Amino acid sequence: MFEKPASAGHPILDLLARRWSTRAFSDRSVDRETLASLFEAARWAPSSGNGQPWSYLVATKDDPVEHERMGSVLTPGNVWAHKAPVLAISVATIHRADKPNRTAHHDLGLANENLVIQAGSMGLAVHMMAGFHIDMAREVFDIPATHDPLAMIAIGYPGDPESLPEELRAKDLAPRQRKPIREFVFRGKFGQPAGLE
Amino acid sequence: MFEKPASAGHPILDLLARRWSTRAFSDRSVDRETLASLFEAARWAPSSGNGQPWSYLVATKDDPVEHERMGSVLTPGNVWAHKAPVLAISVATIHRADKPNRTAHHDLGLANENLVIQAGSMGLAVHMMAGFHIDMAREVFDIPATHDPLAMIAIGYPGDPESLPEELRAKDLAPRQRKPIREFVFRGKFGQPAGLE
Repeated sequence: MFEKPASAGHPILDLLARRWSTRAFSDRSVDRETLASLFEAARWAPSSGNGQPWSYLVATKDDPVEHERMGSVLTPGNVWAHKAPVLAISVATIHRADKPNRTAHHDLGLANENLVIQAGSMGLAVHMMAGFHIDMAREVFDIPATHDPLAMIAIGYPGDPESLPEELRAKDLAPRQRKPIREFVFRGKFGQPAGLE
Repeated sequence: MFEKPASAGHPILDLLARRWSTRAFSDRSVDRETLASLFEAARWAPSSGNGQPWSYLVATKDDPVEHERMGSVLTPGNVWAHKAPVLAISVATIHRADKPNRTAHHDLGLANENLVIQAGSMGLAVHMMAGFHIDMAREVFDIPATHDPLAMIAIGYPGDPESLPEELRAKDLAPRQRKPIREFVFRGKFGQPAGLE
C-alpha cells in the first residue's frame, strides 16, 4: 500500500500522521458493521450545547442505482470518487428552532474528522470533497432549507495510485505540504507567532 | 480520574469513546513541547484544496496577564475555563483572495478535532466553547475581517469534577447522551433511516 505520512515537526499520533486523502480506491466493499462504526465515531463528536448539528446521506455500491444517483451530484473534477464503494453527503443543521446555529459547519467538521480517524484506524481511506452541486444535492435528496449539504465523502479501502489517470496520479504521489506553525499559531495579537515552532 | 466513556452502539476507537468536555481542570501546567504537538496535530488536518483555513491565538498561565486578557473575552457562563492553564481562540479564514471560503468553518472543525484527539492521547482534557464575545475577541487580538473567531478552547490536565460548584459538577457528572444513528444517517432521502443502527 502506498503511504505518505506527514513530516510532522512535533510528535503526533500515528493515526493523524498517516491519514491522507487518496483518490485511488480498491474494489473491495465496506461491510455494514464497519460502516456503522464510522457513523458511531461521528456520533460521539463534541458540539456546541451538544446540538449534534450533523447528518449524513449514504450510498453504497451494493445498491448501484442509489450509488450512481449520489455520484451524479459530484462535479466533473471528482469523477474519480465514483470508484469508492461508499459515498456520503455530510449535512449541517444550520437552523434549529428558528435560530441560526453559528457553529453548525464547525461542529459538522468535528464529527467528520472523527469519522475520518475511525476509518483510518480500520484500514479505510476517506476523501472529503467540497466539489459537488449543492442545489442538485438538495433537490435529489430532499434536504430542507434548515440544513446545509457541505462536504461529500468518498470512503473505501485504499487502491493503487499508479492505477489513476496521470493528473490524479501526480496529485496522489505528491508529498504532503502544510504551512509552518508560526504562520497560524499566534500569541498576543493575530499574526504574531506564538513561538511554538 | 473521573471518566465517562461513550456508550457506543458499535465499536469505536478508545480515544474517541473516552473524549469528553470537562469543566474541571487541575493546576498542572502544559509544557511547551506538549502544546506544540497539539497544534502540529491540527496542522495535518485535511481541508478543501489544502487551504488550511485555520489559525489560533494562544495564552498560557505562565504569562498571567495574557491569560487573563484572553479569559476576559469569555461569556459569564464559561468562567470555569479561567482555571485551564491554556486558553486558545480558533479562527477560520473565511475569505482568501477576495473569495469567500464556504468550507472554512467546517475545515477549522477538522483541525480542532485533530487537536482534541491528540490532546486526549497525551492525557489532556479539552473543552471547546462557542460562548465568548466575538467582537471583543476581534478587537482585543486584532483579528481581521477576513477571519472569523469561532471556538474558544480550554486545554489542561483533567481535574476533579467534585471540586466544581454544584451546577457545573452536575453537568460534568451527567451521563453523555447522543441521538441514535437512525436519526442522522439517511439513505435515499433526507430523514429516511439508512438502517445502520
